[in-house]
Formats: sequence, C-alpha cells, structure tokens
Amino acid sequence: MRINRLRHVAVSLTLAIATALAASGWTQTRREIKIPDVPGYQVLKFDLHMHTVFSDGNVWPTVRVKEAWCEGLDGISITDHIEYLPHRDDVAPNFNRPYEIARPEADRLGLMLFRGAEITRSMPPGHLNAIFLEDVDQLKVEKWEDAVRAAFEQKAFIFWNHPGWKGQQPDGVARWYDEHTLLLEKGWLHGIEMVNEDEYYPEAHRWALEHNLAMLGNSDVHEPIAMAYAALEGKRRPIDLILAKEKTPEAVKEALFAGRTVVYWRNFLMGKAEYLAPIFEQSISMEDPSAKIAPKGRVNFQIHNASEIDYELELAGPVEQFDAPKSLTLAADRTVLLSVQSQNAEAKGKVRLEIPYVVKNLKIAPDAGLPVTLKMTVEFIEKK
Amino acid sequence: MRINRLRHVAVSLTLAIATALAASGWTQTRREIKIPDVPGYQVLKFDLHMHTVFSDGNVWPTVRVKEAWCEGLDGISITDHIEYLPHRDDVAPNFNRPYEIARPEADRLGLMLFRGAEITRSMPPGHLNAIFLEDVDQLKVEKWEDAVRAAFEQKAFIFWNHPGWKGQQPDGVARWYDEHTLLLEKGWLHGIEMVNEDEYYPEAHRWALEHNLAMLGNSDVHEPIAMAYAALEGKRRPIDLILAKEKTPEAVKEALFAGRTVVYWRNFLMGKAEYLAPIFEQSISMEDPSAKIAPKGRVNFQIHNASEIDYELELAGPVEQFDAPKSLTLAADRTVLLSVQSQNAEAKGKVRLEIPYVVKNLKIAPDAGLPVTLKMTVEFIEKK
Amino acid sequence: MRINRLRHVAVSLTLAIATALAASGWTQTRREIKIPDVPGYQVLKFDLHMHTVFSDGNVWPTVRVKEAWCEGLDGISITDHIEYLPHRDDVAPNFNRPYEIARPEADRLGLMLFRGAEITRSMPPGHLNAIFLEDVDQLKVEKWEDAVRAAFEQKAFIFWNHPGWKGQQPDGVARWYDEHTLLLEKGWLHGIEMVNEDEYYPEAHRWALEHNLAMLGNSDVHEPIAMAYAALEGKRRPIDLILAKEKTPEAVKEALFAGRTVVYWRNFLMGKAEYLAPIFEQSISMEDPSAKIAPKGRVNFQIHNASEIDYELELAGPVEQFDAPKSLTLAADRTVLLSVQSQNAEAKGKVRLEIPYVVKNLKIAPDAGLPVTLKMTVEFIEKK
Amino acid sequence: MRINRLRHVAVSLTLAIATALAASGWTQTRREIKIPDVPGYQVLKFDLHMHTVFSDGNVWPTVRVKEAWCEGLDGISITDHIEYLPHRDDVAPNFNRPYEIARPEADRLGLMLFRGAEITRSMPPGHLNAIFLEDVDQLKVEKWEDAVRAAFEQKAFIFWNHPGWKGQQPDGVARWYDEHTLLLEKGWLHGIEMVNEDEYYPEAHRWALEHNLAMLGNSDVHEPIAMAYAALEGKRRPIDLILAKEKTPEAVKEALFAGRTVVYWRNFLMGKAEYLAPIFEQSISMEDPSAKIAPKGRVNFQIHNASEIDYELELAGPVEQFDAPKSLTLAADRTVLLSVQSQNAEAKGKVRLEIPYVVKNLKIAPDAGLPVTLKMTVEFIEKK
Repeated sequence: MRINRLRHVAVSLTLAIATALAASGWTQTRREIKIPDVPGYQVLKFDLHMHTVFSDGNVWPTVRVKEAWCEGLDGISITDHIEYLPHRDDVAPNFNRPYEIARPEADRLGLMLFRGAEITRSMPPGHLNAIFLEDVDQLKVEKWEDAVRAAFEQKAFIFWNHPGWKGQQPDGVARWYDEHTLLLEKGWLHGIEMVNEDEYYPEAHRWALEHNLAMLGNSDVHEPIAMAYAALEGKRRPIDLILAKEKTPEAVKEALFAGRTVVYWRNFLMGKAEYLAPIFEQSISMEDPSAKIAPKGRVNFQIHNASEIDYELELAGPVEQFDAPKSLTLAADRTVLLSVQSQNAEAKGKVRLEIPYVVKNLKIAPDAGLPVTLKMTVEFIEKK
Repeated sequence: MRINRLRHVAVSLTLAIATALAASGWTQTRREIKIPDVPGYQVLKFDLHMHTVFSDGNVWPTVRVKEAWCEGLDGISITDHIEYLPHRDDVAPNFNRPYEIARPEADRLGLMLFRGAEITRSMPPGHLNAIFLEDVDQLKVEKWEDAVRAAFEQKAFIFWNHPGWKGQQPDGVARWYDEHTLLLEKGWLHGIEMVNEDEYYPEAHRWALEHNLAMLGNSDVHEPIAMAYAALEGKRRPIDLILAKEKTPEAVKEALFAGRTVVYWRNFLMGKAEYLAPIFEQSISMEDPSAKIAPKGRVNFQIHNASEIDYELELAGPVEQFDAPKSLTLAADRTVLLSVQSQNAEAKGKVRLEIPYVVKNLKIAPDAGLPVTLKMTVEFIEKK
Repeated sequence: MRINRLRHVAVSLTLAIATALAASGWTQTRREIKIPDVPGYQVLKFDLHMHTVFSDGNVWPTVRVKEAWCEGLDGISITDHIEYLPHRDDVAPNFNRPYEIARPEADRLGLMLFRGAEITRSMPPGHLNAIFLEDVDQLKVEKWEDAVRAAFEQKAFIFWNHPGWKGQQPDGVARWYDEHTLLLEKGWLHGIEMVNEDEYYPEAHRWALEHNLAMLGNSDVHEPIAMAYAALEGKRRPIDLILAKEKTPEAVKEALFAGRTVVYWRNFLMGKAEYLAPIFEQSISMEDPSAKIAPKGRVNFQIHNASEIDYELELAGPVEQFDAPKSLTLAADRTVLLSVQSQNAEAKGKVRLEIPYVVKNLKIAPDAGLPVTLKMTVEFIEKK
Repeated sequence: MRINRLRHVAVSLTLAIATALAASGWTQTRREIKIPDVPGYQVLKFDLHMHTVFSDGNVWPTVRVKEAWCEGLDGISITDHIEYLPHRDDVAPNFNRPYEIARPEADRLGLMLFRGAEITRSMPPGHLNAIFLEDVDQLKVEKWEDAVRAAFEQKAFIFWNHPGWKGQQPDGVARWYDEHTLLLEKGWLHGIEMVNEDEYYPEAHRWALEHNLAMLGNSDVHEPIAMAYAALEGKRRPIDLILAKEKTPEAVKEALFAGRTVVYWRNFLMGKAEYLAPIFEQSISMEDPSAKIAPKGRVNFQIHNASEIDYELELAGPVEQFDAPKSLTLAADRTVLLSVQSQNAEAKGKVRLEIPYVVKNLKIAPDAGLPVTLKMTVEFIEKK
C-alpha cells in the first residue's frame, strides 16, 4: 500500500549516476538533455505523441509525466487514440481523463502538459495528432474532416503522424494524397512527423521543407519508455526541439505554429540551417583559437563540445597552404584535437585560417549536412 | 495504432548490449541472472509481489511479464490489493483480471505466472500475499481471518509482507503480534518478506529462522520497474531465489512450501547455509589449485567468479606458516589473484593449504556471514 | 617507493566491475574473453605484436604482461623493432631484454610469453615479426634475407605485418612483391596480419586464403593499451584466436604453424568456416527447440548467446510455409526471441523447421559471411 | 614503426563517449573534470607526484602528459626518485631527462609541466617532493638536509609525501618527528599529502590545518594510470584542486605557496571552508527558489548539480514549521527534488525558508563536513 509510506530509503550511487529510490517508489532524479539554448530562443525539449491505458498504451497517465521529467523533457502531450480503445472492457472510455489524471503530477514536477489526442483514421489521411485541445470529446465524430475541423476550431496544433508507417503504407514509402492537400489548403495541417518511434521518413522531410510544416519527431510510445529506449545508454526517444521565446506553454505554441522546431533522433539533429547553425555554434568552443607555428609546422587546436551530440565533420574543400583532417568527430562532452599542418615553407606573418566542414549528422535536408567553418588565427614564427 | 504494425526497425547496439526495438514496440532482449544452479536443484528467479492499474499500480498487467522476462526472471506473481482500489473510477474492479490479461503474454515468453493477491489489512496482521490462488474473488470478505482461510483452502502459499514497513510500524521496527502466532499455528503462514522494495528487516530474518518460514525478498513495485530500479547498472529489484527440483510451477510451489529460498538483494544473498554454500561453490573455480613455491616464497592462485555477485571475503582465522590476505573480493564475472606467502624458511614437501574465510555478504543470519574454506596444495621446492 | 609496500587498500566496486587497486599499485582483476572453446580445441587468446621502451614503445615490458592478463589474454609476444631504436640515448639497446624483464611477471600471472622481434625493413618486404625466437641478437644483420633466415633457423613463426600500412603503401593498398613470393617459397612466411591496430586489409585476407597463411590480427600497441583501446567499453585490441590442442606453448606453436587461427577484431571474427562454425555453435543455445503452434500461428524460440560477440544474422533464403525475420541480432550475453509464423492454414503434424541465415560478421572471406542453419521442430495443433 | 604513419582510423563511439584512435596511436580525447571555478579564482586540476621508467615507474615520460591531458588535468609534475633507480641497468640515470622528454608533448597539448623530483629518504623525514626545480642534479647529495636546502634555494615548493605509508610507518599511523619541526622552522615545508594513491591520512589533515600547509592529494602512480584507476567509471586518481588567479605556471606556484588547495579524492573534496563553500555554491542551482504552497501543503524545489561530485547532505537542525528531508543527495550532473511540507495549518503570507544542511563529503576537518544553507521563499495560498 503506497498511499502513506513515509520511509527513508538509502541512496544508491552507480557509474556517475546517482539514483534515489525515494518515498514515492520511483527514482526522483532528472538528467538534463544537453542541447544548448541559442541567441533569442530557449531550446525546449518535448515529446508530443504517446499513449496510456486509456487507449492502447500500457501505463497510467502519471507515468508519462514522471518518465519525461526524469529524461530531461520540458513537456509532453498525451495523445491517446479516439477511435481505437482495446482496453475498453476494463478501462472506462474517457478522452479527457489522461490529461486530467496527469495534470497534478505535471504541476508537482514543473512540466508543461498539453491536452492532446490522436485522430486515428485509415489512409488517407491516416493518423493526425491534435494538441492544445480544450475538449477532446468534440473530436469523437464520424467523419475525419469533422474531427479535424473540431480540433482546428479549438485552435489546436495539428500534425500528420508517421506518414510512412507500413501499417498504412505497405511498401514503407510515404505517399501524399489529395486529402493532405485539402488539409494544407484549409490551414488544418501545421506539422509532420519526420521521425516516429525509430523510423525516419525522408519523404516527410522533403514535404516539411516544401510546405513549411513544423518538423517533428516523436516516440509514439505505448510501453514504459525504458522498455522501448535505453536512454541511459545514449539511445533515447526521438525528441522535438522547440525554439521558444520563453519557457511557457504560450511561447511553445507560438514556436510550433511558426515552425521553429528541430528533430533530435539518434545522433542526428534535423531542421532548417538557421536553427541548426546556432545550436552547433553554442555547443562548441575553442580553448585558444590563435597559435604560433613554424613554417611547415604542426599545431593542435583544442575544441570542446558541451552538447550531448557527437558532431561528425567532413572536410568540405581544400584549405590553402594547410593540411587539415578529412574527418573529425567533435565528441559529446569531450575536448578533441584539431591538428593542422602548414604546407608552406616560406610562410610569414599572421594568417587567418578558415576550414570548411560539413556536419554530416546535422541534416538540413535528407541528403545534406550543415556547412560550417572553423576559424583560427595562425602566426608564423621562425623555426627554433 | 499498434495492432497491425509489421515494420522492421533497425537493431541498435550499445556497450556490450544489443537492444532490439522490435515490431511490438519493446526491447525483446533478456539478460539472464547469473546465479548458478546447485547440485539437485535449479536456482530459479522470482518476484512474488507487484501491482498493476487494477489496484494502485501504474502499469498494465502485460508490462509486469515483459519486464520480468527482460530482467531474467523465471516467473512472477501479480498481487494487486483486494481492499485498496484507488483507480476504481476508471478501471473496473476485477480481482482475477490481472492474471487473465497477463497469462497469454507469459505463455508467449515462457514465463511462469502464479495467480496472486495482497490481502491488505491494518496491523495486525498487516498485509499478506497469497499466491497459487484459483479464484481471488473468494478472498474479498470482511474479516481478515476469513480471507486468509479462503486462500488456505485454495492451497495458496501465504506470506507476510514488509513486516517493518513504517506505514504500519511507525518506528520502523517489525513487531510480532498474537495474530501472527495464530497464523503460524493454523498453518496459514508459510513465508515472510525479509526484504521489500529496498528495505531489509533483520527481525523478519530472525523470525524466518526461528519459525522456519520461507525467506522472501520482493519488489512490491508500483511504477514501471525501470523507474524504481536501475537494473542495467547493477541495481536490480530484490529477487526470490527458489531451489526447485525442476523448472515447473509444481516444483516451484513444492520448493516454496519446503522453504528452499534465498533472498537476493543488492549485493547480498541471504538464506540458510545449506543453500548459500553450494551457490558459492558453484560460482567460483580455481584455474589451478596446486602450485610450486620456494620456502618463504609467494604464489598467486587465480580464482574466477562466474556469478553476478561480488563475494566479499574476510579472513576468519590464522593460517599456519602462511600469510594470506585479510580481505579479498571475488569480483563478479572476473578472475582475481589470491596471493599467499610462505612464512617458513625450512618448509619442505607438499602441504595442504586451507584458508578459512567468511563471506560477509552471504548472510546466514542478520549478523553472520557464510564460513567457507579455500583449499590449495603447495609443493615446496628449492629456491632457484 | 614501491618496493616494500604492504598496505591494504579498499576494494572499489563499480558498474558490474570490481577493481582492486592492490598493494602492487595496479588493479589485479582479469576479465575473461568470452569466446567458447570448440570440440577438439581450446580457443586461446593472443596478441603477437607490441612494443616497449626497448624500441619505440612507451611502457616497460612488465606492463605488457599485466595488461594482457587483465584483458583476458592467454599469452603475448613482445616484438620490439630491431632496426629502429629511438630511445637508444636513454635505454641501452638489448634485443633480448624485453623478454627477460617480462618473463618473471608472466610466470607469476600464468601467462604464456614468446620471445619475439620485429624485423623492420623498407618495402619490400616491409616489416616481419618472428616469434618463438631463442636469441634475438642473431637477427641483427645487414640484409633482410639473412635476418629472416636466422629466425627460420631458430624455428621461429614468421609473419608479415600490416601489409597495407600507409607508411609503406602510400595509397593504402597492400601489394604483393617478388620478395614475398620468395619468402613463401623458402618456407619463411607462415602468417599475415589481416588486421593491425585498427586497420583491416582485405587483400591480406585473400592472400591468407590463397597461400594458406595463418590469419592474424594484432595490436602493434606502443602506448599503454588503455590509451589506445577502450576495452571496458567493448572496444578491445585485435586478438588472435588460436585453436590449440592444449594450453601449452608447444600446442600454440603447433596451431600457428597449422594455421588454426581466427582474427577477432571489433565485432568481427574472421577465419575459415571450419573454425568459425563451431565457435558460433558453441556460443548459442536454444532454451527449447520444439514448439506447438496453431496453423497460421506464431511462436517464439528463445536463443541465448553466451559469447561476447553480437552475431548479426541475415536471412539467406525463403523458408517454406513460414515467415522468419529477415535479420536478427543474437546479442552478446543475452537471450533474444526468434519469432516465426506459420503461413499454412492447413498445416498438420510435426514439421522440421530449418532457417538459413548468414552471419554477416563472421567473415569467411572479405565479402562473405558464415552460412548457418537454425533448426527447430514445430508441431501443429488445433487452434484453440 | 610509428614514426611516419599517416593513416586515418575510423572513430568509434561507445556509451556516450567517443574515442578517436588517431594517427598517433592513442585516443586523442579529453574529458574535462567538472569542478567549477569560483569567484576570483580558476580551479585548476593537478597531479604533483608520479613516476616513470627513469626511477621505478613503468612508463615513458610522454605517457604521463598524455594521460593527464585525457583525464582533464591542467598540469603535472613528474617526480622520479633521486635515490632509488631500480631500472638503472637498462635506463641511464639522468634526473632531468623525464622533464626534458615530456616538455615538447606538454607544449603540444597545452599542459603545464613542472620539473620535480622525490627526495627519497628513510623516516624521518621520509619522502619529500620538490617541484618548480631548475636542476634536479643538485639534489643528488648525501645528507637529506642538503638535498632539501638545494631545493629550497631553487625556490621549489616542497611537500611531505604519504606521511602514514606503512612502508615507513608500520602501524599505518602518521608520526610527526623533530625533523619535520625543523623543516617547518626553516621554511622548507610548504605542503603535505593528506591523500596518496588511495590512502587518506587524517593525522596529515590535522597537521595541515595546524601548520597551515597546503593540502595535497596525489596519485604517486607507477603503472599506466588506467591500470591503477578506473577513471571512466568514476574512480579517478586523487587530484589537487588549485585555486589560481589565472591559468599560468606562476599563478599556480603563487596559489600553492598561499595554500589555496583542495584535495579531490573519491567522492570527497577536502579543504578549508573558504574554498569548499564557493565550489559548492557554484555547482548547484535552483530552477525556481520561490513557490506557492497551501498551509500543510507540500512543494518540490528542483536542485541541479553541474559538478561531478555527488553532494551528500544531512539535515543539521530543525526547520521551523516545515518538514525537510533528513538526508538528500545532490547527484552529479543531475537535477533532484527537495520536497518540503508545511506543518502549520494557519500559515499565511510569505516565508523565508532556510534549511541547514551539512555536506558530509566536503570535509573541512577529518570529522567535519561543510555547513551550508538552502534558501527558498514560500508564499502561502488558500487551499484550493
């Protein structure tokens, strides 16, 4: 019986991780997600697609809040199916209950929680999530158009879920139907999942760019999160990075409608260059970007990466009079050496060194990484 | 929508652990618990106390089965409260449903599943678990004596839960009441939790020895297991080791009634010496237990521990003519050196070396470790 | 001052790994390499290429022995350069000293140690290792042919090091010269490094198959091993698996000359099918290879992999009347599910199910994995 | 042969750690030590006691530099024994060589390197380290007093090594001799090792406080560092935290003579309260230190610890009208909950809440932790 337990339980410490199994029967410890803020915006972390026992998920709504807090998220939306209720013999159908049950736990933990639901229809148009709802009951209607209109009228943010899901696209290729054009034209479609669970849909990535839809990556988790993803081993759920002007539900909503999102999946960040570039820049720092070097000499620059992403750089062009590494991984939470060598035996004076790289795992399109330039100053000295 | 997903998801590999996030949305990978079998018995691993949304837990019953399979257990019992149903407004009360829902999943995964329930009364007698039940409904009666009698008549195995729980023992000290004597005398009490969640009750340990009750240690988990215990980091839930003649529900039931159990909690094994000694013996092996050594010479014996327990040995007495380490940890899954030195400059011939240690974390009583003897043969040779 | 320290230092336990910083200033704990023995042979683990301060390495010879013991090796050969001695101003040149200094430590730890050296010449023929030498001094001669002949006359096992090393093959492609044909014809070449440090040479793999040379993979380590490889994180040095009739230096030598070797590098094993197949078979086991199943039903077989290799299986052909997974990772030290589904609604009786897979990371040639067959028995029962 | 290798080696990524085995044969990746700077000072990390093959150590001097860089240190001193040279038959004695060999590597990696030596005499006075030397040769004299004087005349910083080492204090108890009084009086003793390798000497801690000696904790490592300490698993070598006005050798020297040091050993920081307090304060932050709460209500404050130390807090006194946790671990790199409950049903208005804790593992004396106060503001609101 949990309700009035008041015992103290010893804290256990493991490999750089302390976990407290506290009075409440869970480990009340949060690991922040290390993606830095950028000038003008906080980079908030969300998962906007998940299920509970109130549709076909296998956890109580409060679990989704605690999981999210432990994993460093800033907020979630529980989006149980409206049209698919396999537990209905045991769990009384009630579309607003997941939110109501989870709300007090979210308040205790300071997590944002948006009322949501999954409009679950056959393809086309497939499944659509609506969040920032006021009353989910009004989406329980026969025609899908009416359900989406009801969401729209509640000023919901609406997005297309897993467009390439084999359950609805047997060959695994996402297809765009007239129904999606209709949704777009009516202003009823604001985002699209490029990533769902552990799948990535390049077609969805292209449509997001083409139609200016918010790029999203969500877990769609049904089981306890740790049964689906090994977060502590560096394999976490897909996450929506949302560039918000402040840390409030209103600012998050504004950012979503403005499309200021980045998908964080595995070791990838995927989004517009204008959002990826400052994340990269805020992540890395150089201990000392100026060095003295002999003609034909070699020098190390030390680059620190404060984020949790391993940035994988590939040389994007020749560097005049210098040899630079063809590839370089700026490892997460580490300092690495960028070792460059002068090729000019006659070099003199100060030189501005600019090395063009492409960060392969910061994707600005399905087949394109983010171009960046590493800049240093080199002063040539006489060889000792 | 989960029901007809048929997609393939890439396998991810992490630090010596491959996890497959498979079609079903969970990591279908099991880590065996490395406690060896002993002569005459299989050492099976169980958790006999846990909750679901059908009482005050926060997961669907199938989750308990999958969690147990992933963590290497051989079986479980779901023991929802009969008298405490805080989710009753949403989840229709039904005492047999957790078992019925979990049963097909247990069959798919080859896990044993025992129908169980927690008789949840104020102290005395406190909370009692009954497992191997046929129909939980019959335990829903007013008087606790009648509930226990109903379990007994179903041939259930009955044990006292968390006897020192502060919710019922405000000073944290377990107390034995007349009601427990009554249970004993009627043959209605067969086991006792010495460990619950992350608490250990020395009094319960003594009562188990005194009254020959099966020693038990269970999780009493309410949240998803990974939210309460960090199993992958070596901090797993408490486990009942059951020494069964074969791997069948009948053999497990026989072993429980015969009291052939050991509690596995943190880095402790607690039980009778007759069960702990063979577990230790089957865990360790010596590469070569005979050595040649010069008088006053030093020699290393290499001891391998194939179990997942770090055995912590303390020298229990002097060793004639030899120096042996005062303490020695036989690390889990490792080989370590036992380095001994001859103290006799005149020694000749073959000597049988027997070093008495106590394994501090194999507890045969609250304050006593298991005595063991490490045996080697040493042959003295001329100093080169 | 180390020499007479006799203090006790507390044992520290970390994530599933206990490390003892013992009196001698190092962690005297060994982690065995989990590759099973096979019928007829012990599968011994060796590194036959490494350096010390006596040539261009940066550790004392005893360090190589302790490192090898900690990492679960059965033996090593220290192979300092004969012709390259950059530390000669500080360390007195002496080709036999590394062996002599390391010998007592190897005896204390029960490790095999072979006297060796690296004949270090320009290409062709490049660098050659000779092990099982009796006196390295005799290899210090002007012509490379004489050096190799001297090794041959000492009955040494001789192999070609890093044939594709860019230091001698600027485009990174291994080239076979007349000099290598000469070595072969004289019987002076017995093995070849397919892997060196962290490089793999497919050409060398083909030559080993073509000329029946022992396949080898060695570290060529110069720094402390932990500065080059993160063994505890699953990234160990390349290792020679040697299939010896017993665990003695003579048996290892016989096995090397007979070519019974397998290269263990990253998550690959590379060798002849006749050696890889039994390693795979001894690694995996099925909890119960027979199942009852309804027509069109699905059943799980549980496969345990006791080795430290993640076996990556790919379906190699259709399975009659059954659906089997297209790919399957048998994770190291884990049990996974092989889930198969009957496609025949009319099936009856017992069926022998044989599923052909290729284990992609057990390489029998640069572009070919090991074919294996998973075998189960299925009995069709009436659908309940 | 290492000298002109120019190959590219793939980067391997493991559990949240990327390691590059680069052209030079070692993993050129540095993990910073997460102890924050404090107002007015940089908190630099040093190890001032270690050995190489030039005395009784087992690595080449460059190894000490690379190890230190990888582990996040800012500098080291190599302090080989002057009077104990067991490798002298192979390695030519030369007291200044370790420094000279290591110097270029230190420059390449931007590490501070101080010329040092260990004056290795019997007790009293035992072993003394001298760093910032100009010429070690001048310390090679017969009488220990003359050796110390020579160091003093070179303006060296001189400290007493492992005062309780059993090699010189058989019962393990550090003893203060007249010779140490003499050293003090002459101004020849500036610091003392409270920690050496993995031993802590409480007597030395008391003497440091009494005589105002710089508190030091060093590794005294002889083997490769990873063979002695498992840094990646959170068990690193002892480290001197030096509070320097800037990151220069001169500033470090000034700080050492001024005694602005803290010993970092295991999960302890040991030093004067004036240095420990700001380290603690700079490590932790509260998401929002003000909360609204109902009378008798409960509220969570979220505390983030950006350091790598798990701070272990114990309640140091009663808190008026509130219940606060008796103990609380502020886990390294995590956010945890401080949950407080109002005990006053009549409370109104704003209350300043100050909770007195002692941080047990920040030691200001052998038996005293650092007192700290956690401060929050609580505003009482009507119960909803």
